[in-house]
Amino acid sequence: MNVGILGSGVVGQTLGAKLAERGVEVVLGTRTPKQLDEKRGMGAPLSDWVAKAGKHGRLGTFAEAAAHGELVINATSGTGSLEALTLAGAKNLDGKILMDVANPLDFSKGVPPSLTICNTDSLGEQIQKAFPRAKVVKTLNTTNAYVMVDPNTVARGDHDIFVSGNDAEAKRRVASLLEEWFGWKSVIDLGDITSARGAEMILPIWVRLWGALGTPMFNFKIAR
Amino acid sequence: MNVGILGSGVVGQTLGAKLAERGVEVVLGTRTPKQLDEKRGMGAPLSDWVAKAGKHGRLGTFAEAAAHGELVINATSGTGSLEALTLAGAKNLDGKILMDVANPLDFSKGVPPSLTICNTDSLGEQIQKAFPRAKVVKTLNTTNAYVMVDPNTVARGDHDIFVSGNDAEAKRRVASLLEEWFGWKSVIDLGDITSARGAEMILPIWVRLWGALGTPMFNFKIAR
Repeated sequence: MNVGILGSGVVGQTLGAKLAERGVEVVLGTRTPKQLDEKRGMGAPLSDWVAKAGKHGRLGTFAEAAAHGELVINATSGTGSLEALTLAGAKNLDGKILMDVANPLDFSKGVPPSLTICNTDSLGEQIQKAFPRAKVVKTLNTTNAYVMVDPNTVARGDHDIFVSGNDAEAKRRVASLLEEWFGWKSVIDLGDITSARGAEMILPIWVRLWGALGTPMFNFKIAR
Repeated sequence: MNVGILGSGVVGQTLGAKLAERGVEVVLGTRTPKQLDEKRGMGAPLSDWVAKAGKHGRLGTFAEAAAHGELVINATSGTGSLEALTLAGAKNLDGKILMDVANPLDFSKGVPPSLTICNTDSLGEQIQKAFPRAKVVKTLNTTNAYVMVDPNTVARGDHDIFVSGNDAEAKRRVASLLEEWFGWKSVIDLGDITSARGAEMILPIWVRLWGALGTPMFNFKIAR
């Protein structure tokens, strides 16, 4: 399976390296695929990623990554997602599953961040509205990049991840891929894409928990 | 210890009955303490509560409840909390711990609800600002009333509850009371009262989880 990832920060790099390790053919899309030595947000320079990803991973523009992917992952910053997806091109997303793992974090007033969109709207919904022929599935945004790709590293994997989206079959497919690629054991379907509001609005407590616990290596479990 | 509870809906009634059962002297405050046979939101008529609470529980106005309490609990609807606290009277809250368990849910557009306050403000903060001499501790708002008073009913109590507030000693005292009164084993201090934003913004996913799981008998555990 071919996967295109939009965004070359720590989330895109971590997802991309793990998929390439699993033998998935990955194109990691960025505005500046030729700038190999520039640090990428909290992520490493792309030269490190290319070495790590090996023969199954390569770099490209947003449009190249999206065109390559049978499934596309939005791992850009939430505030830049709509622009990045526009550069990727609607025709390169048509009919495809678009896994949206981004969070609309607003750092303009410093830390802790607030959200640029919330309550009666969400980034997931805005993306679905802007790209109506993509099958948007919001997922993985409620935990950090290292837990996304290796849930067993926290509490032996005994915790939950969520999916939100309008296409039931696309959500089932994503749930199945999360297990196959990363080992996620429990995927909870929250509902249609408007339920992405809940998944995104969990970020403010996530940020506080990072401070309170002194580590980002945790995740939400729904105790029943 | 004397406790005053503001709000006679299902949350106030459930907290009040459990405290009275534990031998805490409770006054349950309501706008209409004489209307015993009127159904209270999703809660039972107050005649039932009086019978259940027994000798340690009685009804009063908001001001009577607050004056009675060495500790006061805000269990009103979030949209009515500031008005109820104003009726309770700032002098009846001065220097006291004010446990705020309310959520600013907005049902004006139907279900699922949105929030009337969020992102860069919270109900907890608004209450602290309006009553600067009360020691506001946001807590218990992230789970339902039955789990609040009996955490062991879900996953043998293996899940978490949060406290937010500006007074460290008040938060420690609340954590200790949550264990003593109800059996809470794990209380996570999220930080100052601005961290109530995170605790309140978890409500939209809580509501979706209720739908997805088909039961409100669950709670958040922070898997580490």
